[in-house]
Amino acid sequence: MRRVFLAILLTFLTLLPLSAASHDDEPLFGFTAASSLAERDWETKFRAIPSPQIMRDSMQRLSARPHHVGSPYDKQNAEWILAQFKSWGFDAQIETFDVLFPTPKERVVELLEPTRFVAKLQEPPVAQDPTSNQQSEQLPSYNAYSIDGDVTGQLVYVNYGLPRDYEELDRLGVSVQGKIVIARYGASWRGIKPKVAAEHGAIGCIIYSDPRDDGYYHGDVFPDGPMRNENGVQRGSVLDMPIYPGDPLTPGVGAKGDVKRLAIKDAPTITKIPVLPISYGDAKPLLAALKGPMGPESFRGALPIPYHVGPGPAKVHLRVISNWDIKPVYDVIAKIPGSEAPDQWVVRGNHHDGWVNGAEDPISGQIALLEEARAMGELLKQGWKPKRTIIYCAWDGEEPMLLGSTEWAEYHADELKQHAAIYINTDGNGRGYLEVEGSHSLEKFVNTVARDITDPEKNISVWKRGQAQRSLRGRPEDRKEARTRADLRIGALGSGSDYTAFLDHLGVASLNVGYGGEDDGGIYHSIYDDFYWFTHFADTDFVYGRALSQTVGTMVLRFADADVLPYDFSDFADTVRKYSDELKALLKTRQDETRDRNQALDDGAFNATSDPRRPTVAPAKEDVPPFLNFTPLDNAQAMLDRSAERYSKAVKSFTSRATGPAQGLQGLNGMLAQTERRLTNPEGLPRRPWYQHLIYAPGFYTGYGSKTLPGVREGIEEKRYQEAEQQITRVAKALQDYSAAIDAATAELEKLAR
Amino acid sequence: MRRVFLAILLTFLTLLPLSAASHDDEPLFGFTAASSLAERDWETKFRAIPSPQIMRDSMQRLSARPHHVGSPYDKQNAEWILAQFKSWGFDAQIETFDVLFPTPKERVVELLEPTRFVAKLQEPPVAQDPTSNQQSEQLPSYNAYSIDGDVTGQLVYVNYGLPRDYEELDRLGVSVQGKIVIARYGASWRGIKPKVAAEHGAIGCIIYSDPRDDGYYHGDVFPDGPMRNENGVQRGSVLDMPIYPGDPLTPGVGAKGDVKRLAIKDAPTITKIPVLPISYGDAKPLLAALKGPMGPESFRGALPIPYHVGPGPAKVHLRVISNWDIKPVYDVIAKIPGSEAPDQWVVRGNHHDGWVNGAEDPISGQIALLEEARAMGELLKQGWKPKRTIIYCAWDGEEPMLLGSTEWAEYHADELKQHAAIYINTDGNGRGYLEVEGSHSLEKFVNTVARDITDPEKNISVWKRGQAQRSLRGRPEDRKEARTRADLRIGALGSGSDYTAFLDHLGVASLNVGYGGEDDGGIYHSIYDDFYWFTHFADTDFVYGRALSQTVGTMVLRFADADVLPYDFSDFADTVRKYSDELKALLKTRQDETRDRNQALDDGAFNATSDPRRPTVAPAKEDVPPFLNFTPLDNAQAMLDRSAERYSKAVKSFTSRATGPAQGLQGLNGMLAQTERRLTNPEGLPRRPWYQHLIYAPGFYTGYGSKTLPGVREGIEEKRYQEAEQQITRVAKALQDYSAAIDAATAELEKLAR
Repeated sequence: MRRVFLAILLTFLTLLPLSAASHDDEPLFGFTAASSLAERDWETKFRAIPSPQIMRDSMQRLSARPHHVGSPYDKQNAEWILAQFKSWGFDAQIETFDVLFPTPKERVVELLEPTRFVAKLQEPPVAQDPTSNQQSEQLPSYNAYSIDGDVTGQLVYVNYGLPRDYEELDRLGVSVQGKIVIARYGASWRGIKPKVAAEHGAIGCIIYSDPRDDGYYHGDVFPDGPMRNENGVQRGSVLDMPIYPGDPLTPGVGAKGDVKRLAIKDAPTITKIPVLPISYGDAKPLLAALKGPMGPESFRGALPIPYHVGPGPAKVHLRVISNWDIKPVYDVIAKIPGSEAPDQWVVRGNHHDGWVNGAEDPISGQIALLEEARAMGELLKQGWKPKRTIIYCAWDGEEPMLLGSTEWAEYHADELKQHAAIYINTDGNGRGYLEVEGSHSLEKFVNTVARDITDPEKNISVWKRGQAQRSLRGRPEDRKEARTRADLRIGALGSGSDYTAFLDHLGVASLNVGYGGEDDGGIYHSIYDDFYWFTHFADTDFVYGRALSQTVGTMVLRFADADVLPYDFSDFADTVRKYSDELKALLKTRQDETRDRNQALDDGAFNATSDPRRPTVAPAKEDVPPFLNFTPLDNAQAMLDRSAERYSKAVKSFTSRATGPAQGLQGLNGMLAQTERRLTNPEGLPRRPWYQHLIYAPGFYTGYGSKTLPGVREGIEEKRYQEAEQQITRVAKALQDYSAAIDAATAELEKLAR
Repeated sequence: MRRVFLAILLTFLTLLPLSAASHDDEPLFGFTAASSLAERDWETKFRAIPSPQIMRDSMQRLSARPHHVGSPYDKQNAEWILAQFKSWGFDAQIETFDVLFPTPKERVVELLEPTRFVAKLQEPPVAQDPTSNQQSEQLPSYNAYSIDGDVTGQLVYVNYGLPRDYEELDRLGVSVQGKIVIARYGASWRGIKPKVAAEHGAIGCIIYSDPRDDGYYHGDVFPDGPMRNENGVQRGSVLDMPIYPGDPLTPGVGAKGDVKRLAIKDAPTITKIPVLPISYGDAKPLLAALKGPMGPESFRGALPIPYHVGPGPAKVHLRVISNWDIKPVYDVIAKIPGSEAPDQWVVRGNHHDGWVNGAEDPISGQIALLEEARAMGELLKQGWKPKRTIIYCAWDGEEPMLLGSTEWAEYHADELKQHAAIYINTDGNGRGYLEVEGSHSLEKFVNTVARDITDPEKNISVWKRGQAQRSLRGRPEDRKEARTRADLRIGALGSGSDYTAFLDHLGVASLNVGYGGEDDGGIYHSIYDDFYWFTHFADTDFVYGRALSQTVGTMVLRFADADVLPYDFSDFADTVRKYSDELKALLKTRQDETRDRNQALDDGAFNATSDPRRPTVAPAKEDVPPFLNFTPLDNAQAMLDRSAERYSKAVKSFTSRATGPAQGLQGLNGMLAQTERRLTNPEGLPRRPWYQHLIYAPGFYTGYGSKTLPGVREGIEEKRYQEAEQQITRVAKALQDYSAAIDAATAELEKLAR
């Protein structure tokens, strides 16, 4: 369920230097000189194997029919993937979970006043696209886990439907109480839209794809081009992911066998109001029937209409009824046992289920995973033995709510906490730049791999290409950094794909990897995301599929084979400092803005500037946010800086002095693999205990978008200052524990070096 | 020919504090205590006179029929205005000039390939709008002073058609050589578009109104709302205004009698390629027929199409033939002789000609001028005698190219240079905030008047309302300044209305005044700019018409009656320092950008980031701009600061100590009125000698938009660094002369005070 909007893709790109060359002469990070030579040899062999033609064939096979959860082809795909893994010599099996998965029974969106219009809610086949006519197997367009409902009311346009949009509506004097809202897709996880609408008293929610966001505003529409046409609808889940992902009836435990399940009515992640997605063809008559104030500039899309916000005169009827069934999800799990440290696991996953044919999402990522796995099979035949256990996972049920990965991670939580050293995720893949987000203890590792992968379009390393992009097109501060910092920064993970349970719930250091930035498209979660579309408009010759196999496969090999697990804590420390600086600046900005606004209120400036013909409502006066005690965080940061620096020196000293393959590193590596766990807290984040990582979380009001140091940041953003201060202490404590764990590893290294 | 785009209106607003109260207890600036009391009395009487009902009646009369240059109703309006002036007891006459004014003979825009489409080039009548059906008298939609031509070629979309847009096209590898360009209105004087297109080798130019700029993107379209509908066309002149305005055949001299005229072929301001304006209804099929690269984000308007730039496959035929006639323009000039200083003139103007019915442009300003004049007539009857001569001017021929005002100013140049103390201009008027641009020696004066005018919507001073607007909505630095600086800043004048010859050619301190910011509209230069539109969507009850009469009338009275002409040089000095700081920052930015770009070229970053499917062309490597010697400007600034401060003290000391009406100030005021002339240079700006003011000019590539310290700024912007350095010296010399003139006035004041 990879997000597609450009604006969001750019945040992926937040963080990877132009001048640094390949480091072939130095040992690989985490390897002694001898191990490094052997590893380079295997990696070189590995990267020659992945085949674009095989990827193409696999995509055609896997996307030939709709393969959503519960569909026959979903199960057939799982069985085919299982057979593939087995054919490469892996210990593979399908692990099944039983989860709540509603499918559409009745769907109505109709305009009742001032004129009548019934939304088609249909995506028609396109003649030249051979799989677009499989109507009998396609899931109709809907938002999974919308509550059942039948509501009629005046319509209000709420832009992206985020809290800041409701603040704008407040300024216009427009309330959604008792109304049906229409929001456009984008700028957040879609489940945020009905959540915030319900918080504001709305009784129903319609979500549409504005052509400004993934339609003709960006280029020609399908089938002439890759962008969304007037009939394309974005399906998708609207569960309240920031509370917890996975089966809504079994939070925190694997949905297997006779596990205790919540009643549907008690599941907190199901929406409070009915929701349906529509195309812009269906949305235009609704939006055109609105009067009332014009939406501010930020509200205006690319339909050829004035974007009034209402309420009304448009009156709308919305009816959504689902079949609330328990369905099986089929995770395909394949293992390559480790030869020296089988109890340290490198876990690698990509989902296989789609909303319809899902060629881009997720098959473009799944075929890269499969080619990686096939190549590992080839290496095994050639005698390669990974030190650590490698686990390949083809997840089912990602689209509805990361079901397959979350239930598996919850079910195997204890083992994973004990054994998992890293989780590497991919999802839909595109053309362009390497985009990586994840744990910053892996930032240096990611950079070392990125220097060894060749960009298929430019024949330079993907690292160098990423540096060029940032140095030319980044924000000014990022441009400078891209030219001067040793490592390109990676972004922080929010949510929206299968890494979530690993990182946020279990505290396993995780990465999400893909290529993109040259791959505009508007078929996300529609019937047009299929083999025809992908092979005409996306990574048409599958060279970025190969690059993704090479990139992630190199990561897997290197992590599985390293003498010392290649975490590094200096980039992490640098990143945490950046986050805490951001928080201090955020608080100051909030203080300044509140003071300024209060002064303007005292001066009557809002009243003086309210146009009587387009009146605006002044905001309420507020207390200026208090100063918060950041000292515990500053002290923890100082400790973290020292610990990270000492560890870096120790590991460098150790690997450079070791002459043969290193021995006796099990204990050290076990300690290292546990470090990320120190960043979690069993009580979790305020009001959402499932989210236990204190550094990264999906935002409560963003979903996809990450909030870093989330307890503190959201406390400030949501004006819970006392809570923010408590969370500072909690984060500081976790960073101290983390530093202590690093110090213990440093001591072990120093001991081994003697 | 007031510009209408919001973006530009905001620059009007650049510069007017929340806390300062009315200064009723202090004498008016430039008045002794006794004179101030009398003046306040007259001003209070004055401001009670202007009548919204009379304005409404006058607008209905003046906009009843099309009244462009050469039309019967244009002459009838001039005669009616003359009769009004005479009825109020003024010494009034019509002064006629004979100017080149082409009108349409043949107009064709047609798409030949890939499909055929013939542009309508027609604005249909609207049933409820009673003057929209006067087709026989309406000037067809056209761009006056387009050269005749008949061209056929592939089409290229060039966004606003500015130099930076061609840089973007260069990056896309798209040339307009031998092509016909289509540009959208906005972001510049429209004459810039064919000029820059021809500089790049285009053979024809079509200009259209994108709904993003003044259509449905901003609100409901006419007749449901005020915005431009799919048939509305913006007429307008495309002369090369930044070379010189006025009759293209008589630069620098009044076009009267047997003045020597250039041949049309030798007139440098006539376009080099044929140009026609079209509606977005006519533009859509042309733009939709383009392929080639997508325009970058800045190119994308609000039509429901992907904005490809071409070239082609769209192939277009453009034919423009005009009747090239000499037509009369009728300036109506009315004088109220001064009682004490008849040789010091306060000149006040607004044009009366329109493109069609022209209710907003220019009649909404003309009716305010007429009500001012009528009120002056009433004051004269009550015994008021202005010290100085007041000249009311209703200009003809502004729309084609400021013809009436420019020819009059050129014809009377010697007298004006000797006598004119100020020129105050208005043009179309709207609803909202006081917007003033002009000579910064008048900034304090403008602020004193603005504090005495009551906003009709809010019952607070227009000054206070302006401060509220800036303190809430300005750029961060402007917001702070609005709260703390004694005077709200006024903007600098570019061009686009009748102040141009007075300020830029003659060096008469000038102001342009109007209300706006709450008056969105899209009828500019169309047949729908009429009484129906204005009375339904604009200043419908004419209260801002009255406010404009009160504002400018108070300025005229106060300037005509002051003991010491109310110039102040401190705000001017502060403003010049701001401009020279901007220039230093501009040069540094150019140096940094060039260095960065050269580094990126050396690193191969442009090639590394060029998408092979959407290839981009790297820019050329350039020399880093040299350092320029700003020392002469810094020294002149230091002198100006001292002179301005001494003058401010001297005038304050003088007026506060004078007990009765001041005497013997003729010499002083004569010196003061000449100060602005010191800012001119008879050689003018590089390559455009008509423009003699060294501080303000319309940009060579902006037209409307002002370039301050234009010789230096455009030298840097256009990479003529040696010229920029020469111009620094020239500006510094002018500022020294100006400071010396201020010092002489200060010495005279100190002598008078003894």
